Amino acid sequence: MNILILSAGTRNKVVQYFKKELAETGRVIATDCSVLAPAIYEADKFYLVPRIDAPDYLDIVLDICKKEQIDGAFSLIDPELSLLARERERFLEAGTTPIISPYELVETCFDKYKMYELLTQMEIPTGRCFVDKEAFYLAEGNGELSYPVFVKPIKGSASMHINKVYGKEELEVLFGLYDDLMIQEFMNGTEYGADVYVDMQSGKCTSIFVKEKIKMRAGETDKAISYKDKELFSAIEKFVEKCGFCGMIDMDIFKIGDIYYISEVNPRFGGGYPHAHECGVNMPKQVIRNLKGESNPYTVGSYKAGVCMMKYNEVMIKDMSDTEMIE
Amino acid sequence: MNILILSAGTRNKVVQYFKKELAETGRVIATDCSVLAPAIYEADKFYLVPRIDAPDYLDIVLDICKKEQIDGAFSLIDPELSLLARERERFLEAGTTPIISPYELVETCFDKYKMYELLTQMEIPTGRCFVDKEAFYLAEGNGELSYPVFVKPIKGSASMHINKVYGKEELEVLFGLYDDLMIQEFMNGTEYGADVYVDMQSGKCTSIFVKEKIKMRAGETDKAISYKDKELFSAIEKFVEKCGFCGMIDMDIFKIGDIYYISEVNPRFGGGYPHAHECGVNMPKQVIRNLKGESNPYTVGSYKAGVCMMKYNEVMIKDMSDTEMIE
Repeated sequence: MNILILSAGTRNKVVQYFKKELAETGRVIATDCSVLAPAIYEADKFYLVPRIDAPDYLDIVLDICKKEQIDGAFSLIDPELSLLARERERFLEAGTTPIISPYELVETCFDKYKMYELLTQMEIPTGRCFVDKEAFYLAEGNGELSYPVFVKPIKGSASMHINKVYGKEELEVLFGLYDDLMIQEFMNGTEYGADVYVDMQSGKCTSIFVKEKIKMRAGETDKAISYKDKELFSAIEKFVEKCGFCGMIDMDIFKIGDIYYISEVNPRFGGGYPHAHECGVNMPKQVIRNLKGESNPYTVGSYKAGVCMMKYNEVMIKDMSDTEMIE
Repeated sequence: MNILILSAGTRNKVVQYFKKELAETGRVIATDCSVLAPAIYEADKFYLVPRIDAPDYLDIVLDICKKEQIDGAFSLIDPELSLLARERERFLEAGTTPIISPYELVETCFDKYKMYELLTQMEIPTGRCFVDKEAFYLAEGNGELSYPVFVKPIKGSASMHINKVYGKEELEVLFGLYDDLMIQEFMNGTEYGADVYVDMQSGKCTSIFVKEKIKMRAGETDKAISYKDKELFSAIEKFVEKCGFCGMIDMDIFKIGDIYYISEVNPRFGGGYPHAHECGVNMPKQVIRNLKGESNPYTVGSYKAGVCMMKYNEVMIKDMSDTEMIE
């Protein structure tokens, strides 16, 4: 059993967890476009590849899949998820299962307004969104929601170009400057993250790990504490199974009063996955079992609440005095 | 030999390095005001202390020094360095050597304009600074320097409230909004960081590690490559010895053309110290030798150039289900 981790970047822990899980039974191969991606050096073997928008990128990756007899492949960066989902058939032809949700669903995750429409249609609480600012002014005038609101690109990764806006004047300036913005209700509540696994054989949600985010830093969760609530588990299970997600998912959730609001879904390993793993949730094991054609047992909530995760910097050191650096 | 690391925060690597160096010959004690400071859990023992501005803070720290028979103490956060330097005598009375530069010098490091004056007076190249905006306009009008410039607080830690300003209008707005700002020449060159050790016994500079900063992230160096230049070593040695620095220092340097400009000095372990350490520079060993009354050999530049450091996230996990969280 060999696993390919695409665009491994700085996700050393994910590579380590897969290596540990495969132990002597298989190899972890990693790729990145940069020699300065520390995670590639954790793998059994790595390939330096072009950037994902290069015309020959897919062919190069498929060649690696064949040459290394890769059973399953996944990516750690957003722009590559669509590619993996769209080219599912070509990966399967190469003997590799792409570990990713269906293409349409992946696209919906990257379009915040489409995700809002999906959640609303499924009657799942979520913050209100507007692409039409006049519609927002009307709703704001009616007291349906109030400033501050978030103004952000409809499609956009991480916390890029997100502004908290306190009035009409500021909002007009932003809409004058940029295209494809949307207005999102500001959710002033407790923020949670969920690491979810949807079994690739059974389609059932087999793992959920929820943590309350305690401290953010540069758009990432820096400190968090594990949290359990059966009502939330049940809402997440229904949502991900009904949508047809597949494999690892990362979700952002807010709680205001007694209500949980789903705000974002990333169909990949979240940056906070090590918290789940260190608390006993093992997604690499589930991936491997699925790739063997077996389905996983239901283990939602089998972890302890009140366990804290605190990030700190580790360093990877590499002698590159003989390496030609093409950045 | 026991070492106290104050305000350890997320600096797990520094705690690990001291533990390793002391091995069975002594203990590392750490403090922080938060139970969510991962580095305290690396130490042999930790104390939760009040915030450094609490009235009884110093007494509490001195009590720890006596109780734990601490030989040397240092801090990892800027606001505490002045305290350590100012209260040197009280620490010495408690039997503890504060590992810090002299008080006046520490204060100069935190006042960017004072540091500019010091460097200028020593005829060391540095970016031009202005506290008087009219003087800046005059110099700009004469073509002595040009936009963009940095506008930043004279005293300020990390990259807080730093603006890159492209014209007079913007500059006027900032000066209208905030007090105690200064204008600093924008140094458009290669950026270096230096980890320097000044022997506490001999007053000589015994270690310098220089790295070129390759990639920044959230105000921190994310990737860097080790670098050697005898001319730069010699300039740093002269500067730190003449000023009378003491112990660990972190410096920011720019190179434009053939000239090195010193831009900032932090009289403490820099965030990038693990790069130096993993390349063979060992400051904990030098601290311990100094605390034993011995001076260190000259080892400036005894490392390899071209060695890359890449940061990634490690996680510390702690069960806090029985801990009362007072944040």
